[in-house]
Amino acid sequence: MKLYIGNKNYSSWSLRPWLTLKGLGIPFEEVQLQFDDFGPGSQFHAALDRLGAGVRKVPILVEDDGFAVWETLAIAEYIADRHPESPVWPRDAKARARARSYCAEMHAGFGSIRNLCPMNIEAFFPDVGARLIETEPGLRKDLARIDQIWNEALQASGGPFLFGKEFGAADAYFAPVVMRVTRFALPLSPMAAAYAKTIEQLPAMQEWIAAALQEQSYVAEDEPYRKAR
Amino acid sequence: MKLYIGNKNYSSWSLRPWLTLKGLGIPFEEVQLQFDDFGPGSQFHAALDRLGAGVRKVPILVEDDGFAVWETLAIAEYIADRHPESPVWPRDAKARARARSYCAEMHAGFGSIRNLCPMNIEAFFPDVGARLIETEPGLRKDLARIDQIWNEALQASGGPFLFGKEFGAADAYFAPVVMRVTRFALPLSPMAAAYAKTIEQLPAMQEWIAAALQEQSYVAEDEPYRKAR
Repeated sequence: MKLYIGNKNYSSWSLRPWLTLKGLGIPFEEVQLQFDDFGPGSQFHAALDRLGAGVRKVPILVEDDGFAVWETLAIAEYIADRHPESPVWPRDAKARARARSYCAEMHAGFGSIRNLCPMNIEAFFPDVGARLIETEPGLRKDLARIDQIWNEALQASGGPFLFGKEFGAADAYFAPVVMRVTRFALPLSPMAAAYAKTIEQLPAMQEWIAAALQEQSYVAEDEPYRKAR
Repeated sequence: MKLYIGNKNYSSWSLRPWLTLKGLGIPFEEVQLQFDDFGPGSQFHAALDRLGAGVRKVPILVEDDGFAVWETLAIAEYIADRHPESPVWPRDAKARARARSYCAEMHAGFGSIRNLCPMNIEAFFPDVGARLIETEPGLRKDLARIDQIWNEALQASGGPFLFGKEFGAADAYFAPVVMRVTRFALPLSPMAAAYAKTIEQLPAMQEWIAAALQEQSYVAEDEPYRKAR
């Protein structure tokens, strides 16, 4: 199967299924589409239109027979269905339900941190982060909830991953958040900060970061704090 | 298990798991919390805080031992896990993946129809709907995508439900959309309009609608087009 992704430096949604697959050692072929201006002549849109799934977003997982699965939560469930041997979700039913509640919360919420602190792996904006934490109550609320989720999960499971000794989709779901909080130097509790470090140091995450650092693209839509790089 | 829901007239998110359970004949106890001003003295918030789950949103499913599951997608997966005999999701793996893609798309998207046409079962706003369709490109885009999803699914499955002869979570997921398009009289293709009628006429949906019509509450936040009722 092929996983279509966007720019590794910017595409937080692409990171989620990529890290799930890579972190769990499930083989897949990566196809990277570069973000462009998404205008009428967009090559990004043209490439996705050729898949015939009717959607113009990454990530999208495409089977060898052309069958497509989109939306990160649906991709995670599809991977779990196809790889029951792999701990995509926790094996315990309650832990599994909790992982899904957290991921669905992330899927539709956290608008402030998402808009104010877009993922931009190669950039560091500690001054912007310090200012935003002062001026944006929505960001403080999002960050407090993230810290609470991580602490709750780690205390219940014993860590080092959210649901125990095994990395899974829930960790991959929060990996883009780790990139945001570290690049904007947002304040975390000690346990949450240690978890962020665990995720950043994962070999699969290091591989993604290294590739992101190689990219030289500048996508204005994802760059509220710079005019160039 | 108990399902905590909000006002039946307004709470589109509450409708989704309620209709899934009711439509599939899975027993549960319903606990209704009335929306209020969500201010410091909110009884709605106080009731949810007593559950101890750390979230202040409905719907939330609570097991007899106090274990809580929130977010509609996570609740759907939990019901599917607990009731493997029930067709919460389609039994075919590809249809199941497609159902999840559609539901996740709805979970995080369709902001225009959600904001411009809030669910308000007892009210009819055909004039507002006609004006919005003229003036709001985002609403036209959302509606076109909904129509496309319904047509695709119904053509592939043969209907009358999105994934064939059995009602499931995907239908419940789109039920609030049916309430919006019918109450705002938004234009649909013939196949999509027939599907909307199928959903509205479901006995479980009729039961929810009848209860919504009994409610006499007026929640200003959900009423952009009326000052009172």
